Amino acid sequence: MKNEEIIGIVSKTVKEILASSSEKAFMPEPKMTLNIAKALSYAVEEKAKEMGVNAVVAVSNSGARPVLVSAMDDSYIASYDVALNKAYTVVSLKMPTKELKKLSQPGESLYGIQFTNGGQIVIFGGGVPLSQNGKIIGGLGVSGGTEEQDTYLADYGKMVFDKLVEELNK
Amino acid sequence: MKNEEIIGIVSKTVKEILASSSEKAFMPEPKMTLNIAKALSYAVEEKAKEMGVNAVVAVSNSGARPVLVSAMDDSYIASYDVALNKAYTVVSLKMPTKELKKLSQPGESLYGIQFTNGGQIVIFGGGVPLSQNGKIIGGLGVSGGTEEQDTYLADYGKMVFDKLVEELNK
Amino acid sequence: MKNEEIIGIVSKTVKEILASSSEKAFMPEPKMTLNIAKALSYAVEEKAKEMGVNAVVAVSNSGARPVLVSAMDDSYIASYDVALNKAYTVVSLKMPTKELKKLSQPGESLYGIQFTNGGQIVIFGGGVPLSQNGKIIGGLGVSGGTEEQDTYLADYGKMVFDKLVEELNK
Amino acid sequence: MKNEEIIGIVSKTVKEILASSSEKAFMPEPKMTLNIAKALSYAVEEKAKEMGVNAVVAVSNSGARPVLVSAMDDSYIASYDVALNKAYTVVSLKMPTKELKKLSQPGESLYGIQFTNGGQIVIFGGGVPLSQNGKIIGGLGVSGGTEEQDTYLADYGKMVFDKLVEELNK
Repeated sequence: MKNEEIIGIVSKTVKEILASSSEKAFMPEPKMTLNIAKALSYAVEEKAKEMGVNAVVAVSNSGARPVLVSAMDDSYIASYDVALNKAYTVVSLKMPTKELKKLSQPGESLYGIQFTNGGQIVIFGGGVPLSQNGKIIGGLGVSGGTEEQDTYLADYGKMVFDKLVEELNK
Repeated sequence: MKNEEIIGIVSKTVKEILASSSEKAFMPEPKMTLNIAKALSYAVEEKAKEMGVNAVVAVSNSGARPVLVSAMDDSYIASYDVALNKAYTVVSLKMPTKELKKLSQPGESLYGIQFTNGGQIVIFGGGVPLSQNGKIIGGLGVSGGTEEQDTYLADYGKMVFDKLVEELNK
Repeated sequence: MKNEEIIGIVSKTVKEILASSSEKAFMPEPKMTLNIAKALSYAVEEKAKEMGVNAVVAVSNSGARPVLVSAMDDSYIASYDVALNKAYTVVSLKMPTKELKKLSQPGESLYGIQFTNGGQIVIFGGGVPLSQNGKIIGGLGVSGGTEEQDTYLADYGKMVFDKLVEELNK
Repeated sequence: MKNEEIIGIVSKTVKEILASSSEKAFMPEPKMTLNIAKALSYAVEEKAKEMGVNAVVAVSNSGARPVLVSAMDDSYIASYDVALNKAYTVVSLKMPTKELKKLSQPGESLYGIQFTNGGQIVIFGGGVPLSQNGKIIGGLGVSGGTEEQDTYLADYGKMVFDKLVEELNK
């Protein structure tokens, strides 16, 4: 299935959810809602299935607090903490985890941050901040495949999120 | 909306999910799947909305590991840990948290268990084990309302789960 | 099966283990060994089976460190921490947990000790210190049944241990 | 003593245990049982003695929960946590710890996972997953010797386990 097709399905799904919902997903002040988190997770899970990855997908809000964490069947037990902490890391440090990876290697400027925040800072790919109107409103963390696959899935999720925001704001 | 109506909707939804799914939700060996957890959470969230409660809903598997945690908009930040730990407690001790409540009061037989397991044991209502064929395959934890409301929602979730198992096994 | 029969079997088993073992279980300075811990656990597990209890049995040494922890099939997940911590509590405080229970209730002299030791102090029955020549050389913690059952099993284990020490020292 | 001899003894022991046992060690649904864990630990301990290593041996189930942890006389106090966490790591990440070692070095794809999961991820040799019919049903963690010795003992344990499964399924 092509990305465009999946995005189409997701947009349709979200619109249906929103139509049947008494709440508005995007309030005047944009923020992460459970409905948006569900649509986003669904898209990432479908893509993961396509790739043969059993992922844990976590979505956090602007307070870096979890909104939704879902563990696909047969995903790694360890992936729960990793995905959750990726979704925390990207909001609390306002950058993708693959960017933090470079900065936190021994000898680099942020080396050591992986030890100072109660084990919540993840320093490998698979986490991305999610923004609306230039403001970070949440984060996405994916864990379950190789670092490359998790990074791909997180970037894919971000693309779906941006598309949804665009369509919903039309 | 009446309980029967909601259960009807949920059953329909689950059947659709299962029909479009390559996997079987209930394997010959019964176990908690993400699809079942989603249907169950959805039902509890709908009922919570009806009651005006912003809940966090957590579903665990037979290893007491989380499968799905969802935080409704405007739910308490503290409810995330409470719901997650309720879903842990009911599988790891094989009883509803409202039953454990009685046993863990000062002077009672299990007073103290709330301190000895890394802060994961919740001793007030809102958590129930979920069983299939007499075997616990997971747990449900709800947090966000009064203890009475959380207990009601957890019991409601258990009823929905039992109904789903019954319908899916027909 | 009567207690005397089980003790007979255990004594025989231990003697066989010791005969085939290059080490001496009871050194000039008495201390808990893995062989003794295994024989003791075996006896408690057999008694638990008889009673229909799926227990976790933990044995600690004079440093309150675990020597052996065994989880019977279908025992509570939560029982692992409880049994382990009972075996810690009885050596670190030199008293059975059922005795500590009285002292740690609200208003009593040790109320509060359940909060100050990193969640390792258990204050309900099922843990007993094990002594040789009047010196505590280890502890036994049992978790899995009611408090009454766990207490019975721990006391039973202590009786088996005392019998073994007596027979081995003949 | 040669490996084949030890395996012979272990197989014999297990068969005897099973013969005298009312439960079946391997249910139609394969899973780790205490009996299997005991036989496996015994084999590893015997091999460790032969090598002059005082090891802690931990066996976990498919939920990465401990089934049996045994500390040989004079083993390192620190080895208890290491062995237990190795048995957790291999099930929760579905790979031997010596494989994870490579992936978690500075600059590598999973560098940082050792900090994000509550200190439960061990990244040096001595842990192996245990599989039956291609499905991971538990894990083995060994700690007490050099990394090379622990790795050898874990691999040896896996070989014994595979042999036992083969013989028991005949």
